Amino acid sequence: MKAINLDLKNLNEVFPDDFTQEQIAKAKTLFLKKLAEDSHRFYGGKIQTAPKAGVFGFNWFNVWYTPGVSKISTTIRDNNDMSFELSNRGNLVGVVSDSTRVLGDGNVTPPGGLGVMEGKAFLMKYLGGVDAVALCVDSKDENGKNDPQKIIDFVKMCQHSFGAINLEDISQPNCYKVLDTLREECDIPVWHDDAQGTACVTLAGLINALKLVNKKIENVRIVMLGAGAANTSVARISIAAGADPANIVMFDVHGALDRDRRDFQQDPMYHRTWKLCETTNPKKIQDFDTAMKGADILIALSKPGPDTVKPASIKLMGTKPIVFTCANPVPEIYPYAAKEAGAYITATGRGDFPNQVNNSLGFPGILKGALMVRARKVTDEMAIAAAKSLADYAEARGIDPNNIVPTMDEAAVFPTESADVAMQAIKDGVARNIITRDEAFEWAKKDIEYSRSMAKTLVDEGYINEPPNAILQDALKWAIDQVS
Amino acid sequence: MKAINLDLKNLNEVFPDDFTQEQIAKAKTLFLKKLAEDSHRFYGGKIQTAPKAGVFGFNWFNVWYTPGVSKISTTIRDNNDMSFELSNRGNLVGVVSDSTRVLGDGNVTPPGGLGVMEGKAFLMKYLGGVDAVALCVDSKDENGKNDPQKIIDFVKMCQHSFGAINLEDISQPNCYKVLDTLREECDIPVWHDDAQGTACVTLAGLINALKLVNKKIENVRIVMLGAGAANTSVARISIAAGADPANIVMFDVHGALDRDRRDFQQDPMYHRTWKLCETTNPKKIQDFDTAMKGADILIALSKPGPDTVKPASIKLMGTKPIVFTCANPVPEIYPYAAKEAGAYITATGRGDFPNQVNNSLGFPGILKGALMVRARKVTDEMAIAAAKSLADYAEARGIDPNNIVPTMDEAAVFPTESADVAMQAIKDGVARNIITRDEAFEWAKKDIEYSRSMAKTLVDEGYINEPPNAILQDALKWAIDQVS
Repeated sequence: MKAINLDLKNLNEVFPDDFTQEQIAKAKTLFLKKLAEDSHRFYGGKIQTAPKAGVFGFNWFNVWYTPGVSKISTTIRDNNDMSFELSNRGNLVGVVSDSTRVLGDGNVTPPGGLGVMEGKAFLMKYLGGVDAVALCVDSKDENGKNDPQKIIDFVKMCQHSFGAINLEDISQPNCYKVLDTLREECDIPVWHDDAQGTACVTLAGLINALKLVNKKIENVRIVMLGAGAANTSVARISIAAGADPANIVMFDVHGALDRDRRDFQQDPMYHRTWKLCETTNPKKIQDFDTAMKGADILIALSKPGPDTVKPASIKLMGTKPIVFTCANPVPEIYPYAAKEAGAYITATGRGDFPNQVNNSLGFPGILKGALMVRARKVTDEMAIAAAKSLADYAEARGIDPNNIVPTMDEAAVFPTESADVAMQAIKDGVARNIITRDEAFEWAKKDIEYSRSMAKTLVDEGYINEPPNAILQDALKWAIDQVS
Repeated sequence: MKAINLDLKNLNEVFPDDFTQEQIAKAKTLFLKKLAEDSHRFYGGKIQTAPKAGVFGFNWFNVWYTPGVSKISTTIRDNNDMSFELSNRGNLVGVVSDSTRVLGDGNVTPPGGLGVMEGKAFLMKYLGGVDAVALCVDSKDENGKNDPQKIIDFVKMCQHSFGAINLEDISQPNCYKVLDTLREECDIPVWHDDAQGTACVTLAGLINALKLVNKKIENVRIVMLGAGAANTSVARISIAAGADPANIVMFDVHGALDRDRRDFQQDPMYHRTWKLCETTNPKKIQDFDTAMKGADILIALSKPGPDTVKPASIKLMGTKPIVFTCANPVPEIYPYAAKEAGAYITATGRGDFPNQVNNSLGFPGILKGALMVRARKVTDEMAIAAAKSLADYAEARGIDPNNIVPTMDEAAVFPTESADVAMQAIKDGVARNIITRDEAFEWAKKDIEYSRSMAKTLVDEGYINEPPNAILQDALKWAIDQVS
């Protein structure tokens, strides 16, 4: 067996030569999961707190705590806005989930979401220079039913401790009610990353993919598989960015979305989905393969694969088809299989395949932008501005079919995105702190460089140790054995 | 004007020579408050997040986030206890307050408590190696009334994200109901620092003060001023540690506590206070000065001073009187004034006077101890064990009337305290993780050294800058001007 390196860069080369593409894909997933378990246990989680202020002698505790801190209490009491300056609130996001729809794993019980929510906090710090706290909450009422009102009450109660709230992995339709209510009733941005976040990054990928196939968003035919919070937001934002709803056909588990979908018409929580039923699929196409015939784009955000979308369906598509299959942790069809079936450009939510259209490109920069201008909301226009910013950034440094969006290690993309989002917030009238684009860019750049550099220092100085090599090799061996 | 040093060590020497003791005390408070405001603004708060796990290459994001993290979700889903090992939950405390009774400042509106709660998180990390999150919540119901049930619901919803909850600065009687209910209904320790925390550290001071005056807790007469959550807990814990309730007289704003206090009898939220009415002050002494006549100890946790307790009252006390005046930010009588009136040992809640009986000596070590053994509760016996641990530690290194308890800069006290608390939790049957005292001590010591050393590295490597010298000198000048 070949050894896997600590940097995991040789991940595609460590599997047996006789493994098929499918076996490699499967083994890679198993390896990453096993390594995740062992290394999360090794570190005891992945995020901690650290001082932001100095203790230059023990008398400083009389400044940071009693009696000095009394002045912070009374200053904020007399002007609540001072809390953004005198506490960490101005750079702090609460990541709130009831863990009822966590990535591809569904309802994982309240603490089950902690790994993912800490992961968001980890990414937010590393990529966006933003602090975040994982809050996995139990939203069950007395009858054991998940009640959106409980999440609403929870967030409204603690909103004064945060600069923004990131809602995450809440099952539908509860997520719609929670988001709509909180966006109305909170005075800080409430961002639903599964919705606006996914839409933003997907749109970024779409913009550049269309450039490569020389098509215009106004003219393309789009098939969408899945009509949850993610894909309905992708549709809404794509339409706002120019796509023609008459050229879109969406499917969920019950079939195609059209004006006959009484289920969505009757439930007010689904009012956004119903709007898509009214405006898309005017021909009332009912069959997935019929819709796929000659389609330019497939956007799947549905059930984890790898067999949710069949190669035969891809074969029906038009010229140079664009195939985004973004279910986590396993895409609806693996990129290699989609390519074999004729896909010209593929994208997934995963970082171990080309073209990761993953939220991680969006939320750290978008929330940083919103926090810097102390925005009251994140508007759809801000999400579109972020998408264009990401697409432009990638285009400027060169794009090709295997490289349509920036990758997470392109550190410079995040300050650019933050600054563009901040400027759009000002334009949209939701900003409380007016700054120039240069100021926003430099601020975000400084904070992000701080985060990355601090992370490196913590490793270099021994505050974060390397995991034992055996953890890596054992995980690889185990994964290969499972697949062999 | 003399210059104040960055380490603030010359704080007692920078005031004009013609300042009286009272002027110095006043100016010191003003200086610390002003410095607090300016330096909190300089840093933008005092706590941030930091990675606890390494990014040794960008593929590690596939471990810390999707697809690898899926294994964390499903592992915790299948066994919720795994959340303590696979996330930071096992070392994380939620500091929850509705900011209705913040230190000496009363109701400061929900975000008003952020400075204090971040301060607790700061101390918890630095002194106890424990991570913590400030959660200032709005507990007002539709009629604008603070509703304890709202805090109860809030904590029950997010308890799965934390290893323990620290309740803080919630006005009475709401704090009693919140604590009693949550201690019953949560499966993690719910610690009310204003109650058990204050009681623990006060008892530690009392134990050593009594050694110095050669009196026994069983025989002393104690006058207590203030009958809020803090002082009623001091009474309860002192009685559990040997004090005779018949020798205690307590006062609140309405007078002495005794069997005639129908107000406490009739409100079930005050059941603990009523129990003290039944057991203390059998002679039904009604007058403060009558109670003070010949008393051995005064414990005041009431209204900020400096004139809440008069020198004349101190003069009435017995031989070598012990005077704890612990209101924040200003004690009920300044130590120099109490000494002038005959006090033999004085203590306050502040670090800029001798004998700081401040909660900061308690909660970091106690919560670390509770977290290590994954305790379900913090029992009163655990608080008493912590008090004895603190007292013994101080005695072993030498005590005198100006040095009865350890100070916060005696780093070694915290692992000792944690280990003693952990052992008591095991003895009391509330621990889920059974370890030896040596293991507990080494674990806590390692984590605390990590925290302090990381804080130092962040300063040394430029992640925490020194505040501009002008901030310090300006604050000093301003404070002197105010008092002159």
